[in-house]
Amino acid sequence: MPVAMKFDLEKSLEILERTPDVLISMLQGISSDWTSVNEGGESWSVYDIIGHLIHGEKTDWVPRTDIILSEETDKNFTPFDRFAQFEDSRGKTLGRLLQEFKMLRERNIEQLRSKNITGEDLAQTGIHPAFGEVTLKQLLSTWVVHDLNHIAQICRVMANQYKEEVGPWTVYLKILQS
Amino acid sequence: MPVAMKFDLEKSLEILERTPDVLISMLQGISSDWTSVNEGGESWSVYDIIGHLIHGEKTDWVPRTDIILSEETDKNFTPFDRFAQFEDSRGKTLGRLLQEFKMLRERNIEQLRSKNITGEDLAQTGIHPAFGEVTLKQLLSTWVVHDLNHIAQICRVMANQYKEEVGPWTVYLKILQS
Repeated sequence: MPVAMKFDLEKSLEILERTPDVLISMLQGISSDWTSVNEGGESWSVYDIIGHLIHGEKTDWVPRTDIILSEETDKNFTPFDRFAQFEDSRGKTLGRLLQEFKMLRERNIEQLRSKNITGEDLAQTGIHPAFGEVTLKQLLSTWVVHDLNHIAQICRVMANQYKEEVGPWTVYLKILQS
Repeated sequence: MPVAMKFDLEKSLEILERTPDVLISMLQGISSDWTSVNEGGESWSVYDIIGHLIHGEKTDWVPRTDIILSEETDKNFTPFDRFAQFEDSRGKTLGRLLQEFKMLRERNIEQLRSKNITGEDLAQTGIHPAFGEVTLKQLLSTWVVHDLNHIAQICRVMANQYKEEVGPWTVYLKILQS
């Protein structure tokens, strides 16, 4: 394997600040055929994934950063609700969700920048409900990978709509195998 | 599984016409740390993937559509060169490749629209070097899924840069397992 990057706050922000525009470029105005269908069972549609990203902006990344950096002795994170979007997104268009996500992300990046996080801060810890002690560096790295994970998932959910239509090419398209 | 979409040219164009802006939103101006590293061995960096997409615009999708719809009796496709980008991209910046891809894609979509493709055209066939007979509908469906496949791959290549940095969260991030 090539040498992987070490965590870098500015380079992490390069990804985090781009995600709303990536999603808007990809999804604003496309037919709901692409965005309302899931991969079967309890899996998520594109619409559900955007609601999940919004819930993360509200309850996960910055609130957990605040817990880690606070003076309080209780460092336990509030468990994340993976199903909150089914209630929160109700009645909203995808376009409105995309704009809401963009607004929340911009505000969160501003808040993160205003903290002037140091190398020492990155080593501070909080208590994750399943993993126990985790560092701020791990939390912020996860925020970046979580964005990329869900952009890739959105691609996969949409690609699967044409799984039959590609015929024999399916064997060359890794996204249809996963 | 939910009912998948049937091929629809307009809905396919919704994806195809968005891809250049998706890639520009994601990649224009970010540090080369994210874009110059591959996943080891003969795998591709983000930079290599954009070169591959450019080569597809030049030699694959529209030229093969032309073969399928032509009056010629020889319907054999020219085999696609999966390594052409290593020569073609040499000396070009990623920003320049992104603009080149956008320009080529716009031209190809114009050409595709100008053909006024009918349902009968979609059933016409060409000869793929590995698969034999394939339809225009399969080729155009594959063009769409191929875009989504490589956007997802770009996300994965970048996410893998932080594979170690996320610590225990790796188990929740499907993109790091594939």
